[in-house]
Amino acid sequence: MNPGLLVVISGPAGVGKGTIVRKMLEKDPRFVLSVSATSRSPRPNESEGKSYYYKTREQFEEMIKNNELIEWVEYCGNYYGTPRDFVCDEIKKGNVVILEIEVDGALNVKRLFPDCVLCFVIPPDFEELEKRLRGRGTDTEEAITRRLARAKEEFKYLEEYDYLILNDCIDNATERFFSIIQAEQMRTKRNQSLINRFKNI
Amino acid sequence: MNPGLLVVISGPAGVGKGTIVRKMLEKDPRFVLSVSATSRSPRPNESEGKSYYYKTREQFEEMIKNNELIEWVEYCGNYYGTPRDFVCDEIKKGNVVILEIEVDGALNVKRLFPDCVLCFVIPPDFEELEKRLRGRGTDTEEAITRRLARAKEEFKYLEEYDYLILNDCIDNATERFFSIIQAEQMRTKRNQSLINRFKNI
Repeated sequence: MNPGLLVVISGPAGVGKGTIVRKMLEKDPRFVLSVSATSRSPRPNESEGKSYYYKTREQFEEMIKNNELIEWVEYCGNYYGTPRDFVCDEIKKGNVVILEIEVDGALNVKRLFPDCVLCFVIPPDFEELEKRLRGRGTDTEEAITRRLARAKEEFKYLEEYDYLILNDCIDNATERFFSIIQAEQMRTKRNQSLINRFKNI
Repeated sequence: MNPGLLVVISGPAGVGKGTIVRKMLEKDPRFVLSVSATSRSPRPNESEGKSYYYKTREQFEEMIKNNELIEWVEYCGNYYGTPRDFVCDEIKKGNVVILEIEVDGALNVKRLFPDCVLCFVIPPDFEELEKRLRGRGTDTEEAITRRLARAKEEFKYLEEYDYLILNDCIDNATERFFSIIQAEQMRTKRNQSLINRFKNI
């Protein structure tokens, strides 16, 4: 009664989705984070297979050609994408694969995996999002303005998602994300073999 | 972000759905049980508006005629049904109305309220269900046989439900039911006004 599941989590920069995902991974060993492939160079604190799978541009383009990625984007001159094998293997094992990606990628994944679950993390309001971005102290004023403009763009796609997760506080938001996964694993459409067992009594 | 909701819970006799519902009602004052109308006489330990709304056969038939019931059945010579006003009023207030009814009624409710959520409580296996029915000590051997045959009939409709709640232990099952309700309240389709707020920033 714990079918494997592919769950996408999106949301504007600063909304706290990274923290929610980290807390989720601590809750249950069956929750696994999909590691992306990228053509950009590793940063000092990053490691192969944990932060990213590092590829040359040529290797990455080969992966695209061979249909080894379920979604990919080119961003600031580097490729980023989600390797198909990892996702499919983990779902088959009955694990819950969490994918933290942007709106475009999320909609592509939904087309390829109609059974996946799309979650979007929202802030209590726009002012709070702005406050959080400034609070991080990592972005220039120009970057903050760009991120907020991007957030407004992303909000236009809210209806394409299955669930909204309000992040008023990290623990509540994590609890909400957990409930969604628990509930989705109980959906009849994901438990056909169990149903067959009861129907054939 | 807590839209009103209509939730139906079904399951074979002896599976423990009554206990799950009672535990749910204790968890949150916004969970309310729909009280049925019936034409049968009150039993000594029952009370008007709490156990049932007691009606004469004529009054009940008048309610059917006036479309005041969202589902009704005649069972052992008595009418049982769900008054529409109570359900609609509570949903409007943002409450979660729980309806504990059988498969036929549940499917009728889904036709009238496509946004309702249908949950079916399953036992770990059929032997466990039989054990629980005998354990109650309230049924004759004949009644047990009849209830088990009825359970097999009901299992044929499992796919019509949205969720399966495994009752391996009451606390886990209650937690599962709670997660389903929490998750359903986060569905984008139930939060259009919130979405509009973000889209119009």
